[in-house]
Amino acid sequence: MSEAEIHIRFSETGLRAQEPEIARLMAEALGRPGLLSLAAGFTDNTILPVDLVQEAVNRLSKSGLNEHLQYGTNTGRPGLRKAVAELMRAENGESLDWLDAEHVGITTGSQQALYLIAQVLCNPGDIVLVEQPSYFVFLDLLRGMGVQAVSIPCNDDGSTDIAGFRKLIGQMRSDGRWQRVKLLYLVTYYANPSTRCMGLEEKRQLGDLLRALAHGIPVMEDGAYRQLYYGTPPEAPSVLSLPEYEGLPLIYLGSFSKAFSSGLKVGYIVSRHRQILRQALRVKAHHDFGTSNFCQAVLEEVLSSGKFQSYLEVSRAHYQQKAEVLDAALRSAGLPELGWSWETPQGGLLFWLRGPEGLDASANGDLCRACLEQNVLYVPGDLCFADRSPLNFVRLSTGALSLDQLREAAARFGAAARQVSAT
Amino acid sequence: MSEAEIHIRFSETGLRAQEPEIARLMAEALGRPGLLSLAAGFTDNTILPVDLVQEAVNRLSKSGLNEHLQYGTNTGRPGLRKAVAELMRAENGESLDWLDAEHVGITTGSQQALYLIAQVLCNPGDIVLVEQPSYFVFLDLLRGMGVQAVSIPCNDDGSTDIAGFRKLIGQMRSDGRWQRVKLLYLVTYYANPSTRCMGLEEKRQLGDLLRALAHGIPVMEDGAYRQLYYGTPPEAPSVLSLPEYEGLPLIYLGSFSKAFSSGLKVGYIVSRHRQILRQALRVKAHHDFGTSNFCQAVLEEVLSSGKFQSYLEVSRAHYQQKAEVLDAALRSAGLPELGWSWETPQGGLLFWLRGPEGLDASANGDLCRACLEQNVLYVPGDLCFADRSPLNFVRLSTGALSLDQLREAAARFGAAARQVSAT
Repeated sequence: MSEAEIHIRFSETGLRAQEPEIARLMAEALGRPGLLSLAAGFTDNTILPVDLVQEAVNRLSKSGLNEHLQYGTNTGRPGLRKAVAELMRAENGESLDWLDAEHVGITTGSQQALYLIAQVLCNPGDIVLVEQPSYFVFLDLLRGMGVQAVSIPCNDDGSTDIAGFRKLIGQMRSDGRWQRVKLLYLVTYYANPSTRCMGLEEKRQLGDLLRALAHGIPVMEDGAYRQLYYGTPPEAPSVLSLPEYEGLPLIYLGSFSKAFSSGLKVGYIVSRHRQILRQALRVKAHHDFGTSNFCQAVLEEVLSSGKFQSYLEVSRAHYQQKAEVLDAALRSAGLPELGWSWETPQGGLLFWLRGPEGLDASANGDLCRACLEQNVLYVPGDLCFADRSPLNFVRLSTGALSLDQLREAAARFGAAARQVSAT
Repeated sequence: MSEAEIHIRFSETGLRAQEPEIARLMAEALGRPGLLSLAAGFTDNTILPVDLVQEAVNRLSKSGLNEHLQYGTNTGRPGLRKAVAELMRAENGESLDWLDAEHVGITTGSQQALYLIAQVLCNPGDIVLVEQPSYFVFLDLLRGMGVQAVSIPCNDDGSTDIAGFRKLIGQMRSDGRWQRVKLLYLVTYYANPSTRCMGLEEKRQLGDLLRALAHGIPVMEDGAYRQLYYGTPPEAPSVLSLPEYEGLPLIYLGSFSKAFSSGLKVGYIVSRHRQILRQALRVKAHHDFGTSNFCQAVLEEVLSSGKFQSYLEVSRAHYQQKAEVLDAALRSAGLPELGWSWETPQGGLLFWLRGPEGLDASANGDLCRACLEQNVLYVPGDLCFADRSPLNFVRLSTGALSLDQLREAAARFGAAARQVSAT
C-alpha cells in the first residue's frame, strides 16, 4: 500500500478544510494564455515601494544591531505597535487619545487577525453576523471553522437596514439563535467587495442599535483599505472613537498590505478590550509565535522615515486613475445600457457591479462562461453573500492590470455581458 | 460599565489559551538588570546574515519585477519550494529522489507547521505521542488545543525504549486510548531540549515497530536544528528516506530560523502524503493565506546565490565554539562534582543538564530561586515533559550570550547549584 493511500483520521477542522471555490476558477483561468484577470485582489506591481523597502533594509543593515534578523516578540515590535497607534490616532482624531501601543497586536496580515478573533470567540455551530455582501475570504474562513455566517439586512443602496437588523435580532432572540451569535463583522472603508464606506450617520445609528440590543457581542471593524481613499478621506472615524459604541467590545483590524506592500504581510489588531486582545495573542503564540520580525522592522523603519504618507499619496492618485479608467471603460463598453449599475468607488481597489435582475454571474453561470471565452476573469459576487444569493453581482479589481489592460478587460467583459444579454 | 469589564463568551480555544509558564519566568527576569539569560532560544545576533540579506534585497530591487513585495501564493514560492526539495535531497541522499517542490509547503516558521499538522489531525481529547523530553512549545500548543501529550518511554541515555514503547501501545490498545492517538512527534536532530540526534539503528528499530503496530498514525519528524551540526553531519537520514518507514504517513518539518535567520520566520512542511499536506495548506489559507512573500523571496535569492552553505559553515563553527566554551565553563564551575551530568552537544544551540536526583529545578523550586538571585536564567526542564516530571533537568541555550557572558553565566549557574546543594 502506498503512503498516499493510507486512510488518515483527520480532525473536524481537517475534514472541513475545503478548497475555496474561487481557487477552482483561478486554476481554470491559469491555463488560458492572454487572460486578463479582474479577479485577483493584488496591488499594482509597478508602484510597489521597492526603493523605500531597500532603503529601510540598508539602514537596518548599517545599524549594526542585527536584531531585525532575530526573533521578535509574539505581540509585535513595540516601535511598530506605537507607530500603528499614532497612525490610528491621526486618522480618528482626539477621541482616540487613549489609544497606545498596549492596545495593538501585530499579525501576519489582517487575514491572521480575522482568524484569531473568530477562533477565540466561536465554537463550531456559532454564528457571526456579516454584511450583505461581506468579504468572501472571511466567509470561507468561517465555513472552515464550522461557524455560520448570517447576513444583516441592507437597503437598496447597500447601507445597513437598521429597522431590518432590529427585527432580525428579535427573530433570533425568539428562535434561540441569538445565544449563538458571537461576533458582528463590518467592513467599513471602501469595503471588499461593495466598495462602500459606512457613513457617519449610519455608523451612529448602528451603534445605538447595538448598545440597546446586542451589548455583549464584540464588533469587529475591518479597515484594510482605509488609507486608499481618492482625494477626500473617508467621512466616518472608526467605531473605536464614536460615543455611540462606548461600552461595546470593539476590535479594529488594519493592514499594511494594501497601503504599502502585501509581500510583507503585516496587519494589526487594535482593541481596548484587554481580554480579547490577550486571548487572540495567546492563540497567535501557538500559531506562529510572532509575525516576521524582519518585515515588521522594515515597516517600522519606513514609518519612522516619514515617507509612508508621501508614498500613500502617490498610491492613492495611482489607484484613483485606475478606477477612473475602468469606470469610463465599463461605461464605454455599454454596460449601463445592458442594465448594469455600480457606485463609482471613492477609494480602494475594487468595483462592485450589479448586473440585470435574473442574471447568473456565479462560477457556473452564463456570464462566467462567456467571460472565460472572452479571456477575462472576475470574482462571482454570490461568493460574497452568506446565503450565496443574489447571483447578479460581480467584483472587479483594478490592482493587477495596467491602464491599457483595464480598458481591454472592460471591453471583453462588456462583450461577454452583451453576449449573455442577447441569449 | 467600561469596555474592559464586559463579559465575553470566549470559544473553547479562547478559554484554553493560557500564558505559557515560561513567559511568567521570563517576565520576572526582565526586571533584573544585568541578568544573563541561558533560557532564550535565540540565535546569535553577531553572526546573523545581515550582508547576505541586504545583497538579496538589493538584487530583488534591481530586478525590476517588484513581485517580491506583492502577495505570494498560499503554498509558497515555487522557487523556494524547489530549493527546499533540493536541500532535503542533498541531506538525505538518493533515497529521496522522488522528492520535489510539490511535496513542500512553506510555513510561517516551523511553529506554524506544528500548529497546522496538529490542527488538521487532532480534535480536543485526542492524544499525541511525544518523546521524553519533548519540545515544550509544542506541548504548550497541544494544551491550547485540548490535546493530550503522552510520552513514549526512553532509556537512561535518552534513546527510545523500543520494548517499552511496544508495551505502551499494547496498554493503550487495551484501555481504549489508542483510538485517540493521532500523531507521533519526534525531534530527531540536536533536539530541543535533549540535544540528541536519533541514531540510525534506533530510527530503524522505531520504524519497524511503527510499521508493525501503528500503521495509520502519522509520524512528524522535526529537523529544525538539523543543519547546525558541529563538524560531522548527523548519522541518520530523515525518516522520509528510510525503508523501515515505507508506507507510513510521514511529515517532515524544517526551518530556516536556526540555520539562517529567525527574523524571516520561514519554515516548511515536507510530505509525500498528499492529503495531509493539502489539508494543512487549506487550513493555512484560512490562517494567513501564505507566508510573507518578501521573506520567501529573500531566502530564495540567498539559496540561489550559493552562499547559504558557506554561511552555514561559519555558523556551525561559531556555535561549536560557543558550545565548547559553555561546556568547559560548566565543568570549571564544578557541576560534575555536584552530581550534574550532560552529553556534550554535537550540534544545535542547547545544553540539557541532568541535576542530582531529588533536585527541584522547576520554576517554583530552589534552583530557580537561587539562579535568579545569581542573576542567571534557564528553562526548567519539567516544562519539557508531558507529565511535568522529573524535576531535575535544566535546558540552557548558547545562542544569545557572548563567550564571556557564557563563562560568567556558567559560573553563576554553578554558584546557584552549589548553594542549593549545600542546603
